[in-house]
Amino acid sequence: MNIEDKNGATVLHRTQVQAPRRSWRTWLIGRPLPTADAPHQTIGKLLGLAIFASDALSSTAYATQEIMIILAAAGAAALGYTFPISIAIVILMVVVTISYEQTIYNYPGGGGAYIVSRDNLGSKAAMVAGAALLTEYVLTVAVSISSGVAQISSAFPDLFPWRVQIGVAMVLLVMLINLRGVKESGTAFAIPSYFFVIMMFITIGVGLFRYFTGTLGTVVNPPEMHSFGEAAMIGPFLILHAFSSGTAAMTGIEAISSGITAFKEPRSRNAGITLLWMIAILGSMFLSISFLVGPIGAVPSEQETVISQLARTVFSDANFLYLLVIAGTSVILFLAANTAFAGFPRLSAIQATDGFLPRQLAFRGSRLVYSRGIVALAFLGAALIVIFQASVTRLMPLYAIGVFLSFTLSQTGMARRWWKVGHLRPGEEVREAGSVLRYDPRWRGKMILNGIGALLTLVVVFVFAITKFVDGAWVVILLIPALVLLFSRINAHYRRLAEQLSLEDYGAPPRIVRHRVLLPLGGVHRGTLRALSYARRLSDDITAVHVSIDPEETERLQEKWLDWGDGVRLVILESPYRTFLEPLLEYIDTIDATRQPNEVITIVVPEFVPRHFWANLLHTQTALTLRWALLFRRGIVITSVPYQVD
Amino acid sequence: MNIEDKNGATVLHRTQVQAPRRSWRTWLIGRPLPTADAPHQTIGKLLGLAIFASDALSSTAYATQEIMIILAAAGAAALGYTFPISIAIVILMVVVTISYEQTIYNYPGGGGAYIVSRDNLGSKAAMVAGAALLTEYVLTVAVSISSGVAQISSAFPDLFPWRVQIGVAMVLLVMLINLRGVKESGTAFAIPSYFFVIMMFITIGVGLFRYFTGTLGTVVNPPEMHSFGEAAMIGPFLILHAFSSGTAAMTGIEAISSGITAFKEPRSRNAGITLLWMIAILGSMFLSISFLVGPIGAVPSEQETVISQLARTVFSDANFLYLLVIAGTSVILFLAANTAFAGFPRLSAIQATDGFLPRQLAFRGSRLVYSRGIVALAFLGAALIVIFQASVTRLMPLYAIGVFLSFTLSQTGMARRWWKVGHLRPGEEVREAGSVLRYDPRWRGKMILNGIGALLTLVVVFVFAITKFVDGAWVVILLIPALVLLFSRINAHYRRLAEQLSLEDYGAPPRIVRHRVLLPLGGVHRGTLRALSYARRLSDDITAVHVSIDPEETERLQEKWLDWGDGVRLVILESPYRTFLEPLLEYIDTIDATRQPNEVITIVVPEFVPRHFWANLLHTQTALTLRWALLFRRGIVITSVPYQVD
Repeated sequence: MNIEDKNGATVLHRTQVQAPRRSWRTWLIGRPLPTADAPHQTIGKLLGLAIFASDALSSTAYATQEIMIILAAAGAAALGYTFPISIAIVILMVVVTISYEQTIYNYPGGGGAYIVSRDNLGSKAAMVAGAALLTEYVLTVAVSISSGVAQISSAFPDLFPWRVQIGVAMVLLVMLINLRGVKESGTAFAIPSYFFVIMMFITIGVGLFRYFTGTLGTVVNPPEMHSFGEAAMIGPFLILHAFSSGTAAMTGIEAISSGITAFKEPRSRNAGITLLWMIAILGSMFLSISFLVGPIGAVPSEQETVISQLARTVFSDANFLYLLVIAGTSVILFLAANTAFAGFPRLSAIQATDGFLPRQLAFRGSRLVYSRGIVALAFLGAALIVIFQASVTRLMPLYAIGVFLSFTLSQTGMARRWWKVGHLRPGEEVREAGSVLRYDPRWRGKMILNGIGALLTLVVVFVFAITKFVDGAWVVILLIPALVLLFSRINAHYRRLAEQLSLEDYGAPPRIVRHRVLLPLGGVHRGTLRALSYARRLSDDITAVHVSIDPEETERLQEKWLDWGDGVRLVILESPYRTFLEPLLEYIDTIDATRQPNEVITIVVPEFVPRHFWANLLHTQTALTLRWALLFRRGIVITSVPYQVD
Repeated sequence: MNIEDKNGATVLHRTQVQAPRRSWRTWLIGRPLPTADAPHQTIGKLLGLAIFASDALSSTAYATQEIMIILAAAGAAALGYTFPISIAIVILMVVVTISYEQTIYNYPGGGGAYIVSRDNLGSKAAMVAGAALLTEYVLTVAVSISSGVAQISSAFPDLFPWRVQIGVAMVLLVMLINLRGVKESGTAFAIPSYFFVIMMFITIGVGLFRYFTGTLGTVVNPPEMHSFGEAAMIGPFLILHAFSSGTAAMTGIEAISSGITAFKEPRSRNAGITLLWMIAILGSMFLSISFLVGPIGAVPSEQETVISQLARTVFSDANFLYLLVIAGTSVILFLAANTAFAGFPRLSAIQATDGFLPRQLAFRGSRLVYSRGIVALAFLGAALIVIFQASVTRLMPLYAIGVFLSFTLSQTGMARRWWKVGHLRPGEEVREAGSVLRYDPRWRGKMILNGIGALLTLVVVFVFAITKFVDGAWVVILLIPALVLLFSRINAHYRRLAEQLSLEDYGAPPRIVRHRVLLPLGGVHRGTLRALSYARRLSDDITAVHVSIDPEETERLQEKWLDWGDGVRLVILESPYRTFLEPLLEYIDTIDATRQPNEVITIVVPEFVPRHFWANLLHTQTALTLRWALLFRRGIVITSVPYQVD
């Protein structure tokens, strides 16, 4: 169906055409979806909690253990500090949550740290937030999958030697699910999330009941205790170090603020309430676990997780309940990795649209998802699992510092925003990038709230950087500036390109006045004659060029050219060193030197196309080599005239 | 300097130009050499012996040991069979030598097995000989270097764990020497070769003297005895198996017949006499070693070679003489690998010229040597050393079967040749491919001599194949037919190509009557306008094509095109599945369907060329993608108009 468009262009509607043909990709990730199918369903609070909370809630599966593993360096007695440290973390969690509530109400269009920083603090801060968050998503995949595998191998110790392989396989599985698209996954998320929450509350409930009734025993056959680092004394450094590890419990609480648009109207209110529910569940679960590990005498270990020790002690011999807890914990950890697979591609698409990452990351794949970002995340996450041998403890020094950096930037951005709001006249409204600034008489209090959040999280960043620097935090501390540098180089490239391509102040388009054609010849045969007749269509000014390596061959070529060359001038370039490219480039240089401003030189290269791919190895790839050698010359166009050989 | 050539072509002499610029390659392998410098010096018998004998003579370093290692499977007593087996091998050696003497006199231009088979038995046999010899050259590198490293680690046991690394390093060193070129290496060869011969004769002489005077002791602290395979009884199979391993002593005796042209005139006579000297030295050295290992009670071992045990027993405490023997043996083994680096590239160049291997193998590199063949051999040899962990014994089942196969083919070819000679009239001369057939009244006797050689070596091939099949000979037995298949596929490709390119029976060259130009557009900017003005030069029939993924972007593009498109028709292709390539290919299909026989379609693709290579990652490589997708379509030419961005 052809339609004349209002601008006079012919528009070929292709709605009748079938979807692209089926292939192994169709089988793996499903049939392609047309753009019109873009998802637009919204969700309520119950479903929203299930979808956005898995990352945050799942961190209870390892946060307590990671506190203990640091304290263990000072001996078993030091484990008593686990609970107080957890209380401090929950207090911090509440402060950050209050800050985020404000963000949610102010950014109904989605207020991730990148957007809030970009809109309020400028592109530098946005790049830092972007770098921190992208790093963090990769680590979330590695940590969550590794912890999930650790839960499974606690119940089935035979699987322990296979943890890296299982971890990588899980990453690939989650990648495939995401390449298929998230549309179907809404309700699929709800069941395991709530199952985990219910199982954990049962465990905690029974545990607390038995504790208060005095019937709670201690861990039978506890595993060997692991600690991290050299033996140490209890002191401020160790306590802060353990605190830093415990902050892993706070990863994921920013998820809701980035995903507000997924909620039903009133969006901000629904999202805000969901965040409160989530923090209530997270805080109580984390505190209860950190409390119960004391009385049961759980020890941190790489062989058996603390969750596993807790569950089997609480349920004594009820192996079935124990297995349900392990299953629930593993599944929610895999779901947590899944949320990174939503966040990373979305953020990298936003950054690509802003010109900080390759544009290709902003293209939607055949299933309407940002496939390139999904594949990149899977590759990086799997690489981390292999490098760190699926050990949560060894990944921990890298984890969470990025999250806190993004908290700081996001809260600082909000504080800055309140400052601007405070300087509007009452009733005035200003539309900025993604949100609306409206005067609010309580701006001072809100600014202070966000300011406290920013300050506290900044302190945590420093505590983290200092206590964990040598353990591995230095990697992230070097990586983030490196990424920022990369982003700004990419951005500079795109900006320069746009300037140079711009048609503003551009006079008449260039007119080509002369057109010279060069025709490199290896021999005279049907392929070269075809190229010659093509060259004839382009210009009357044709020069055939032969690089002479073997004098006899050159002799034969010249004789044949007399018969078949159609009177076209032939230049023989002697090549005493048997090189092909150098004499030709030198000759092009001499021609180029006399080229007029509006003259174009086209090099027509006859190219064999064998039917079988392997046969390419039997030919020198002249066209390709020339293309690379001449890529940077202005005004030289390379045309390869294919000659198909059956 | 331009010269009008007799055929009217302009010849640009480039003798004034400097050699290609210096780079890391210059530093590594030396400055490029002009073609006129091709080596043409010839050598006498003494130098010829040194150059061509290293492969053959060096095999005495491992042949005796490999016989013993097989016999050892039947216990230490079985080692007594070493000497009788060696006598049988020397008898076979004499027969083969007589056969080869005849080849040398009949092929003064060089009569390797490949050429003799090709000229007398046809291309099938030649391919088999070529496959066998190429395989054998690779094995020669692996076996000789491994044995050389084994000699060194016999004297310095600390180096034993590093044998694979040392072996690979030696391969790379020999490769580099050969990439520099063989010109300088003539005399450099003579010294170590004669040094080895002298040291071995001193060792043997002293050894025999002490044996006959009854003062020869036995090996002090002999190493642990190694055997190959399961424990066995002495029987025909074991004896034949040991014999097969011992035939490794005969590898390399064909070298002189391939390299006759290197000798001074009278070439054949000089080469023939050199072969006799070589066999005399080889035979006496091999027999003496095989004899002496008995009385001194040497045992086969991977830790210490038999040569090392012999030398230290003969010289008792004279550590200095012992080290000289080890040094001489190691060096000649490395030289033996070097001869493979002469043979493999030369043979593969001949096969490439005949169209059985990729043509590139026949191109001489910057130092006038067949660099690609040299690098290929080094890669394959090093790979074998890594796979077989530099163990001569584990390489042995693959070694020598190819050599004997080539012996058989070469002798059969000679017998066939005598048959033809016998059917000429007296005095008649026939010129065939590489040699001259001249009537010889004694043709019957000579035919029988070559026939016996062919038969005996064929029997060895079968003995070898049967006794060593399971140990590894099956690899070679499968590999040779696979290579022959590959050669004939390659040959068929080149032949078909030549037919299709041939100008015989070719009428007028094709005339292009219509020329349509398609101009795919992603946006309207300076780059596309440049491509448009180029397209304007090509044809008046231009269609700009835009694949619409984002409707807003398409809208903007259309408006801009109205201003800048110079009236060229624009077609919008809707792409509901967000693919770029498929709608474009579909559109090209519809155009292609109405294409006239002499119409060409050119697709002009605007292409960004960023100044930095990495920036290419920031752009979709449309031109490249299109090129691949359209490679197999007839009559479609792709031109990319580069737009350099600074």
